[in-house]
Amino acid sequence: MTAIGSGSRSELRQLVCSQLQLLLEQENLEGAKALLIPVQPVDIAEAIEGLPESMQAIAFRLLAKDEAIAVYEHLDSAVQQALLQKFKHQEVLDVVDKMSPDDRAKLFDELPAKIVRRLLSQLSLGERQATALLLGYEEDTAGRIMTPEYISLKETLTITETLERIRALARTSEIIYYLYVTDASRHLTGIVSLRDLVISSAEKTLGEIMTRDVVCVHTDTDQEEVARTIQRYDLLALPVVDREQRLVGVVTVDDVIDILEQEATEDIYALGGLQSNGENYFQTNLITVARKRVVWLFVLLITNTVTGTIIKSQEAVLEQMAVLAAFIPLLVGTGGNVGAQSSTVVIRGLNTEEIRDLGAGQVIFREALAGGLLGLILGVVAMFWAYWLQGRWAVSVAVGLSLVAIAILASIAGSALPFLFRALKLDPALMSAPFITTAVDVLGVLIYFNIARMILGI
Amino acid sequence: MTAIGSGSRSELRQLVCSQLQLLLEQENLEGAKALLIPVQPVDIAEAIEGLPESMQAIAFRLLAKDEAIAVYEHLDSAVQQALLQKFKHQEVLDVVDKMSPDDRAKLFDELPAKIVRRLLSQLSLGERQATALLLGYEEDTAGRIMTPEYISLKETLTITETLERIRALARTSEIIYYLYVTDASRHLTGIVSLRDLVISSAEKTLGEIMTRDVVCVHTDTDQEEVARTIQRYDLLALPVVDREQRLVGVVTVDDVIDILEQEATEDIYALGGLQSNGENYFQTNLITVARKRVVWLFVLLITNTVTGTIIKSQEAVLEQMAVLAAFIPLLVGTGGNVGAQSSTVVIRGLNTEEIRDLGAGQVIFREALAGGLLGLILGVVAMFWAYWLQGRWAVSVAVGLSLVAIAILASIAGSALPFLFRALKLDPALMSAPFITTAVDVLGVLIYFNIARMILGI
Repeated sequence: MTAIGSGSRSELRQLVCSQLQLLLEQENLEGAKALLIPVQPVDIAEAIEGLPESMQAIAFRLLAKDEAIAVYEHLDSAVQQALLQKFKHQEVLDVVDKMSPDDRAKLFDELPAKIVRRLLSQLSLGERQATALLLGYEEDTAGRIMTPEYISLKETLTITETLERIRALARTSEIIYYLYVTDASRHLTGIVSLRDLVISSAEKTLGEIMTRDVVCVHTDTDQEEVARTIQRYDLLALPVVDREQRLVGVVTVDDVIDILEQEATEDIYALGGLQSNGENYFQTNLITVARKRVVWLFVLLITNTVTGTIIKSQEAVLEQMAVLAAFIPLLVGTGGNVGAQSSTVVIRGLNTEEIRDLGAGQVIFREALAGGLLGLILGVVAMFWAYWLQGRWAVSVAVGLSLVAIAILASIAGSALPFLFRALKLDPALMSAPFITTAVDVLGVLIYFNIARMILGI
Repeated sequence: MTAIGSGSRSELRQLVCSQLQLLLEQENLEGAKALLIPVQPVDIAEAIEGLPESMQAIAFRLLAKDEAIAVYEHLDSAVQQALLQKFKHQEVLDVVDKMSPDDRAKLFDELPAKIVRRLLSQLSLGERQATALLLGYEEDTAGRIMTPEYISLKETLTITETLERIRALARTSEIIYYLYVTDASRHLTGIVSLRDLVISSAEKTLGEIMTRDVVCVHTDTDQEEVARTIQRYDLLALPVVDREQRLVGVVTVDDVIDILEQEATEDIYALGGLQSNGENYFQTNLITVARKRVVWLFVLLITNTVTGTIIKSQEAVLEQMAVLAAFIPLLVGTGGNVGAQSSTVVIRGLNTEEIRDLGAGQVIFREALAGGLLGLILGVVAMFWAYWLQGRWAVSVAVGLSLVAIAILASIAGSALPFLFRALKLDPALMSAPFITTAVDVLGVLIYFNIARMILGI
């Protein structure tokens, strides 16, 4: 029995990693080779990434040719590049020529243009065309992430003929669970799943069993929309057509999972005030990390200086009643939190289509109501706390009233700005936070001091 | 040519939705039926959700039996329940009996226990057993999300025999792209993909072509780990075994996409200060929304009262130098932002395994360094701004120094607390924000007033 649960699997991975290093240090290459035979390519890739750089190429050369390609495709792009530099020229070509076109396009994106040109010129003709095709499309579109290795057939073929054809093609094609039916000018006319094929009687033709209502995307469709389409229709693969509706490639479900995860990370980072470019934060150096974070902090620092300047302008009021300062963090902080909640749900709702066809007005109105309700609850609590802290009802009422006003304002700003930025074709997740903070802080402090001055008669 | 790009597809969906309502209002049932024939089940489900409640059951009854099940599985659980109440008894049974067991278990989770018991007792035997099996496992585990409708075969079967068997079974089984090979006591011994089957020669046996190193999970494995395993190994389905390593079900990749999205939404909501229970925020009522949000706001309000109390205790200092109050939002705000960045990357890193085997100490030390670097840059800027605002170097230096100290402190708190909460088996995403805010606000204000008093000699 070799089925291994995933818990023990992660222990197994660590064991493989340390064993591999030990065997290589002892120069026991046969032992290392034997160790890796039952291991999955993605786990071998991780083990190689964990080795000291000097051993990575040695470990890689232990692998059988086919497995080497699979392992290489799973390596981090930094390790991929390091290995390329250590390989002999022929080894480089062997690996790069056999990678799947979408993984190769990803690698070429990272390599210097000079090396890409040289490698491209040495690929076999079919591989060169496939790669050039992918590299010709914009980043983050269906064209860039698709694989041109699909199976397309004519609708006059019978099931028996199709099965024979698949047997011949399956070794070179990445995915064979869907077969695409095209006409003489390569237009996509239908789709047949391997399941349909297997359960149909042998003498039928593809035209008889194919589904004609095909869900597909264009080469310039954004990758996030590609992912959403696959998710919505529970597909294993999605055909990509060009402007003339000719089939040019296929996006597979495993790529979609990675795209959705990357998009979620970008959203989370944006909400946390960081830029993300899809790289692993924990593997980037400290200077890059600081650069990624400082832009945002600067924007927020400038925001805060505006608030500070307003408070400074109220120095006269503060000198008469210093205790007013004690409530600024509470008002500004709570306002910021209410605004953050509203913008979080609206941004996530826009990105996952949870909002669907609710209009902006409807959502903002609802958030304003929720903000008013929350402001009332929190305002009453804050008022009593303020009274307990300093014993003057006038100040306490000013704090409570300000909190209600600020909560409503924050909810409106938090829900309206994402819609505004989306209408302006800016990423709501990236743009909203500083503007919401600015609006809430600046207007919040102004509301507070004005209400306090009215009530206290200063 | 019926291939339709996804852009025009969403317009098409809206068209179907409004057309359907129009036809139903005119009582043109034949027209409505014809309209829905070429539409995908998930799109029909959305169109039905968009109808007034009185029309939903009428529209649903237009569908052919098989399609009705598929559409029903795609409906929101609220609409599913509303329809159940309107159906006649036999209709209910027809639909519920034919749903796939995992979708049915999801529906039963939402229904009152009394109705579930009644429905369960009326299901056919196989369906009842399948549902009871799933409902017996904990929520959010592999056991609950798996489907028991897989194909398992013996390893002595030949390819030809297997293909015949599949033809008989494919109509009742949800996924046939992997076949599972089991021994006499139902232990999982290997796996054969439909691809392997189709490309192998007919006289071979399953035992000869199967892969013996099977990746699988246990019934009590957390659903997030199930999703990560499918993602890691690029699988279309993952077998689930019980404690005795017997095959009991299969989790498919389409469920995994939804799980990863739900987990990402939970993380995003937690970072934005909201509770999430997997429901659509925009479809929950305002009272529930307020309840979901107010808990968090209260915690943060209490945090802010602590800060306020500390500022109040410094009233004497503030009365001598009211201008010090102007810098509180900047210091506390920037500290909060630096801390939020650190906790965001650590929480996301822990949840996506980006951090992998980096130790907590290593990550926290790195974040402290980054915090110091950011604090220096921002501190210098803040110092000059403070000088420009109020013209005293002593106050400006106090502001700059405080910012450096607060940035380091915030980075350490932001990166250390997620590790701490994980070690205590609490969800880092949910727990970290209020504690980080508290630590940064309270300690930040204390640091600031102490540095200011030392430098200003108050």
